[in-house]
Amino acid sequence: MKVYEIRKSLPVIKDASNALLIYDQILARNPNVNRWIRSFPCRYSVRSGEGLKDIQALPVHLKRILSLKHNIHEVYVIGGGSVGDFGGFVASILKRGVPVYQIPSTWLAALDSAHGGKTALNVGNFKNQVGTFHFPKKVWIVQEVLESQPPIRLHEASGEFLKTAMIGGEALMKKLSKWDWWNGRIVWKDLPSFIDVKYKVVRQDPHETKGKRYVLNLGHTMAHMWETRFRVPHGLAVFHGLLFDLAWSVHEGYFDAKRSFRMMDEVPWSVIWDRQFHQKMDKKLFSLSSVEVKKYLLRDKKVKPDGLRFTFIKKPGQVFIKNVKIESILKEYQRQQKILKEFYENL
Amino acid sequence: MKVYEIRKSLPVIKDASNALLIYDQILARNPNVNRWIRSFPCRYSVRSGEGLKDIQALPVHLKRILSLKHNIHEVYVIGGGSVGDFGGFVASILKRGVPVYQIPSTWLAALDSAHGGKTALNVGNFKNQVGTFHFPKKVWIVQEVLESQPPIRLHEASGEFLKTAMIGGEALMKKLSKWDWWNGRIVWKDLPSFIDVKYKVVRQDPHETKGKRYVLNLGHTMAHMWETRFRVPHGLAVFHGLLFDLAWSVHEGYFDAKRSFRMMDEVPWSVIWDRQFHQKMDKKLFSLSSVEVKKYLLRDKKVKPDGLRFTFIKKPGQVFIKNVKIESILKEYQRQQKILKEFYENL
Repeated sequence: MKVYEIRKSLPVIKDASNALLIYDQILARNPNVNRWIRSFPCRYSVRSGEGLKDIQALPVHLKRILSLKHNIHEVYVIGGGSVGDFGGFVASILKRGVPVYQIPSTWLAALDSAHGGKTALNVGNFKNQVGTFHFPKKVWIVQEVLESQPPIRLHEASGEFLKTAMIGGEALMKKLSKWDWWNGRIVWKDLPSFIDVKYKVVRQDPHETKGKRYVLNLGHTMAHMWETRFRVPHGLAVFHGLLFDLAWSVHEGYFDAKRSFRMMDEVPWSVIWDRQFHQKMDKKLFSLSSVEVKKYLLRDKKVKPDGLRFTFIKKPGQVFIKNVKIESILKEYQRQQKILKEFYENL
Repeated sequence: MKVYEIRKSLPVIKDASNALLIYDQILARNPNVNRWIRSFPCRYSVRSGEGLKDIQALPVHLKRILSLKHNIHEVYVIGGGSVGDFGGFVASILKRGVPVYQIPSTWLAALDSAHGGKTALNVGNFKNQVGTFHFPKKVWIVQEVLESQPPIRLHEASGEFLKTAMIGGEALMKKLSKWDWWNGRIVWKDLPSFIDVKYKVVRQDPHETKGKRYVLNLGHTMAHMWETRFRVPHGLAVFHGLLFDLAWSVHEGYFDAKRSFRMMDEVPWSVIWDRQFHQKMDKKLFSLSSVEVKKYLLRDKKVKPDGLRFTFIKKPGQVFIKNVKIESILKEYQRQQKILKEFYENL
């Protein structure tokens, strides 16, 4: 089940004659990575982003891929979240599924999306509406690839790192509080202990049939809405989604208020963007009307008209799921909207 | 594992509020079936055929389906092979897979394609290049639906029935020899014993990882080539594919020649189209050059450049798999080509 491997450099593929490599074209700018890419006789370059995940483009991609090579026995994917989602999906449907090897090239993908077997494409504006479970045969976490990313990529992953620590427990929260978000070297050292949290959860419920995987959704209900509506980066949306879930947990009396303040004080805010930036974000994210919130929530594939499972937190390491009505979320959104408005007015 | 149920009439669906029905539009002409279709608040009509299975059309179908209804928790599919393949694939990727219920409306689908969990779409001219394994929750075999089909549909299924009997053994061959291919009533009575053959094989290797499912490919290597090249109906192509596999098995000494003649004499030929028709078919199917045969074989997703697994038969009930080189198939094709030419010249 634990299929990832930490490496300094890219792995040598002994026999790539029946393999297809799907790679983010931007990675070819890195000479080392480019040399590795060119070692595959059959390779397919893509441009990362939501456009790649649009189902509209899938037929053309598949036609091009099959015209490159017919008998594909395995797929290698190197890239960030969108490339991994796309490549994983393609591997899962080619000849009813061929093995896939993932090499995440962003911190976000290395921590989260490359693991756990979920693949996804978008249908129009509806994110991740189609997809499959297709567990990678191997995930290679490669230092030279991750550390060659621009520092902003690490910032963009901060929300998922915080989520992972909240699910993982105090020890990870402590590690996180000591990070320098401009320095990938320090994060690299701690990375495996964060990745392990995801495997621990996924192992209990690989195909999400028992609802146990759902704790990984911490912060994500609001995040998905904000991402769709405002096109903010995933990690940033998740960061604010976590604040939402935490504030609601405190309000409901699940999470001790003092402890919550202390915990969030220890998160190195200043380096996850800055306070002014977050203030602007708060204003934007809480500018929606109830009608709009409801509309966007109902688009979420995890939301059912009669309500949804929401993630609450008791303390780091104790996340739980509770069924809530959509009306309850709307009420909580309005409550936090009001508090933030008053807070910023009194600043 | 055995999920099919034999029924006189269509099942009553107690709560269809979160269901999507995908149905072949032609079935709405039948008043009983139409009434049943209209009991679904959310239904999507399709036109059957290879066009439906073209990956090019998938994005539009998915957009339309999601605009009909967002929170689809299960999919019901009523139709023939192409509708079942399409509907099964859609169900397998919607929200990473929702349960699917199949109601095959043709004999071919009721005997074969609705069972076993394989879904598939075509990429350009390449048949079934993408797909998934997605096992139906239930397959309803409904007498009123099957018996309302035009008699030609039963003829079109004859190849798969013969294949099933060859895999199943003498008892099924005997049943088959007594059938009247113009009378669905008799076939209906024996149908479950034929369906059970497929379940028996699939149970041993659901995801086709051990190669045991491969015996179901009897007659299909040549059939797929002929279907692609000449657009002959699947059942007819399989019928001639079986003759090819049988003749090769006899030539290799696996199958006793006398027994083979006796067996094929007992198959009610005259009702599976007629001898003149088959003579025309033979001429057409064996008109290909070696270059063409090779080209079409290499398109088959089960064929690898270094060869393929081929199905041979020792006697009814004893099908086995052997690796052969593509050159061996070409040689055998030429051998049979020559024999048929001489045979028809001397008629």
